[in-house]
Amino acid sequence: MVHSAPQQSAALAPAAVFDWLDEAADLRAAAGLTRTLRSRPADDPVLDLASNDYLGLVHHPAVTGAAAEAALRWGGGSTGSRLVTGTTALHTELEDELAAFCGFEAALVFSSGYAANLAALTALTDPDTVIVSDAYNHASLIDGCRLARSDVRRAPHSDPEGVRRILAERTHRRALVVSDSVFSVDGNAAPLREHSAVAREFGAALLVDDAHGLGVLGPGGSGAPAAGGLAGEPDTVATVTLSKSLGSQGGAVLGPRRVIRHLTETARTFIFDTGLAPAAVGAALGALRLLRAEPERAERARYVARTLADRLRAEGLHASEPDAAVVSVRAPGPEAAVRWAADCRTAGLAVGCFRPPSVPDGISRLRLTARADLTDTQIAEAVRVIAATAP
Amino acid sequence: MVHSAPQQSAALAPAAVFDWLDEAADLRAAAGLTRTLRSRPADDPVLDLASNDYLGLVHHPAVTGAAAEAALRWGGGSTGSRLVTGTTALHTELEDELAAFCGFEAALVFSSGYAANLAALTALTDPDTVIVSDAYNHASLIDGCRLARSDVRRAPHSDPEGVRRILAERTHRRALVVSDSVFSVDGNAAPLREHSAVAREFGAALLVDDAHGLGVLGPGGSGAPAAGGLAGEPDTVATVTLSKSLGSQGGAVLGPRRVIRHLTETARTFIFDTGLAPAAVGAALGALRLLRAEPERAERARYVARTLADRLRAEGLHASEPDAAVVSVRAPGPEAAVRWAADCRTAGLAVGCFRPPSVPDGISRLRLTARADLTDTQIAEAVRVIAATAP
Repeated sequence: MVHSAPQQSAALAPAAVFDWLDEAADLRAAAGLTRTLRSRPADDPVLDLASNDYLGLVHHPAVTGAAAEAALRWGGGSTGSRLVTGTTALHTELEDELAAFCGFEAALVFSSGYAANLAALTALTDPDTVIVSDAYNHASLIDGCRLARSDVRRAPHSDPEGVRRILAERTHRRALVVSDSVFSVDGNAAPLREHSAVAREFGAALLVDDAHGLGVLGPGGSGAPAAGGLAGEPDTVATVTLSKSLGSQGGAVLGPRRVIRHLTETARTFIFDTGLAPAAVGAALGALRLLRAEPERAERARYVARTLADRLRAEGLHASEPDAAVVSVRAPGPEAAVRWAADCRTAGLAVGCFRPPSVPDGISRLRLTARADLTDTQIAEAVRVIAATAP
Repeated sequence: MVHSAPQQSAALAPAAVFDWLDEAADLRAAAGLTRTLRSRPADDPVLDLASNDYLGLVHHPAVTGAAAEAALRWGGGSTGSRLVTGTTALHTELEDELAAFCGFEAALVFSSGYAANLAALTALTDPDTVIVSDAYNHASLIDGCRLARSDVRRAPHSDPEGVRRILAERTHRRALVVSDSVFSVDGNAAPLREHSAVAREFGAALLVDDAHGLGVLGPGGSGAPAAGGLAGEPDTVATVTLSKSLGSQGGAVLGPRRVIRHLTETARTFIFDTGLAPAAVGAALGALRLLRAEPERAERARYVARTLADRLRAEGLHASEPDAAVVSVRAPGPEAAVRWAADCRTAGLAVGCFRPPSVPDGISRLRLTARADLTDTQIAEAVRVIAATAP
């Protein structure tokens, strides 16, 4: 089957096939954009302001205990596609409780928020749809737009008039307006009510990625759609993650029952993926129930964020105005940001470091998570370290 | 910000925005293609030949215990992107052991096999690449091809000469040949050695999705690349799932260290997704260690598959020739397949039911998983039920 002589004399030797990856690595290194994995120990002594554990629930015994119990009872995995063997009664419980908590008719759980976004964008659009996507949307929404067989238009960031201009010119039968509720880099909130009003004027649907809103915004942390009076509306769909405020893993789409049915039957990242593992379902359920019992956690996360931002600004730093539980602090450049974050770590403080291409405006930043369980002493210590190590 | 009068008199009312989804549902119903979720109880009494739990490990105490222990020790979730806080020492342990077991230099764990495939296809290609993709490849590979900014060519199914024709005509600087190792519908194996030889003739890389090979093929279940002498080759990359033979959730990319570094630094579904939950990492590690200790499980899964197929054919049914742990049985059409699977369930046997669009050739089938832990009595019972309920 294999000819004896290669047909192209230029064919690379097997050992050289991936040489170009090393060249790309050299270019990243020259630009200060090398990324490395840091493996953390279970008993990491640093003060964590880098995770997305907004409510401080990831180690709560009600969450870890529910995860452990689910694994022991339901197995290490869900064993298949949700449509074959991958739906346990625990998945259904989580979907029912999550939909009720957030104020939507129904919910569908995925193995990640990424998969949930790909599903919503591809299944709720067709070639006769224009997708109007906020310029600062998360990578998973952008990839969902690229997978959708639709016309995709990038709208100026958080600009309902910009959305209007695109919708007014559209020639497509359908339209879908897509935005994060809280943008992950700076923690600023989208004008969801205005986006909804503009979408309705043109008969468009609205898709909101509430990854950073669930657990933090809305009554008792029920999310940005609830805060904006949009939860349960017949033209509004939300996606959430279970891996941030809920201290677990996975994602979900929330919306009208007809939308959830459509995703169940047609979304490729639902049909062709293994269902979320029982332990993750259990952990998310445990966190959700805890949040219902202790709704003040959401307000506390917002308070911590505002306090952090105020005090960092008082130190002369360029901190963002937090609408949820994320605060960013601008750095002079990618290498300075990396050094700053490393100096914080040396001083016992873990902070996020966002650089291109993870920042839509190209500005490197520290990213701080205002966990609800940070004490006033910890907040003061975090501010002290960040200010003392500032470039 | 909102104008008082709609600019388009044809704008849909909010309640009508998703009417088209109901029309689509009616069309699916008319074609016999409705899909519904079945929520299973923890103590489901049916004999399971529908899951992907090829080695029968999903409820093994070494797997569920490791999941529970990991959740209690490491938390309900990984708390962030693998590049920020989402890499625990447990993730690194799993990556090291998985790479060693499968014979590759390095491994990178993702939240799903879907995400691993999207990562490999997008990060290992560029606009000057042609991707040669087997016509029967899994949906996640197809979506990865669609996300890649490359030229994608569909090669005839399991046809190295067809791959050769595409590579011979290429004008692109780079090429990537992509194939499942075991196709999930019929359980047939791809001609990986021949694909590799053709790829090498033209200096192309080879990407193998070993979702259904890991744990079943190769020495001690080390996978199809090891079986084909391709593991650890400098031009060969594999993806696997942790959610099938390993009874957990997640996926991984295996390959040369330079490939893994490149994915770590550039793959969007790695950078912008939350790391796999510790419980899932623990479960996969537990299963991997069990498989190393009991390598005969792999051979048993293959034996069960061959036995099932032989006996179903002896009953006059159209069963596939299994190369791994999957056996399919053809049905006359989608509605007959659904009825057949339902009749099996009534008789206490769970089987998969694959219909369009989940079958590349449009032929509806029952899909049976030959779990390594099926007893001879259970195999006989499964054959009896399938034959007795055949349309």
